[in-house]
Amino acid sequence: MTSRTPPRTSFSEMMRRGQVFSPDCPSREVLKHVTSRWGVLVLVALIPGTQRFSDLRRRIGGISERMLAQTLQWLENDRLVDRVAYPVVPPHVEYSLTPLGREVALRVEGLVEWIETNLGQILAGRTTAAE
Amino acid sequence: MTSRTPPRTSFSEMMRRGQVFSPDCPSREVLKHVTSRWGVLVLVALIPGTQRFSDLRRRIGGISERMLAQTLQWLENDRLVDRVAYPVVPPHVEYSLTPLGREVALRVEGLVEWIETNLGQILAGRTTAAE
Repeated sequence: MTSRTPPRTSFSEMMRRGQVFSPDCPSREVLKHVTSRWGVLVLVALIPGTQRFSDLRRRIGGISERMLAQTLQWLENDRLVDRVAYPVVPPHVEYSLTPLGREVALRVEGLVEWIETNLGQILAGRTTAAE
Repeated sequence: MTSRTPPRTSFSEMMRRGQVFSPDCPSREVLKHVTSRWGVLVLVALIPGTQRFSDLRRRIGGISERMLAQTLQWLENDRLVDRVAYPVVPPHVEYSLTPLGREVALRVEGLVEWIETNLGQILAGRTTAAE
């Protein structure tokens, strides 16, 4: 957060330290995955430990099978989630956070907990929420 | 994060404490604003202090005027951002974080800084990023 002013940075420099304020920095893409509607919830749901696909689907209210699969694939590609498929019938696939994923999940959890805790205060000012 | 199992909760209970894992909890909407592509960057850009619309637009690479206006409106409605319009010609509008907004912005900043710092490690595993 020290020097954010120059919007253009070389790729090798971005690899040393991303710059989310720069439109072409790949950190924007990672940020998108981590803060996506379902990315947030998948990361937090994996904090207690390894889970099967069906466990995650049950835990995360409203997620479709397709969106869960896509979100897990993003996070796996970002090396935040590990996927282990056991060669059994019916297929058994387990997901867990990598050490890197755990670090980011705890930060995301902090944000989620803040929102849950302060929701009353946030909504208090809305006329529509008063009813 | 203590009791997340029951997916259905009464509205008054959610007002006391939001439950993001529940699909009908209004915390999902707040989470969406705060973690949206531009919401994240607007919150972090406001941490140093009050800014004009044009300052924010310059600071946040790639944002359109329309998206900046919409994001600011979301955050204002969530009581995270204060908007002050001075009755002058040409119009002069300033934005700043509310105390509530500052709290959440610092958490979002922690997440952003983590991604920026660890970007090299995240991308290292991708074949496309190796070139």
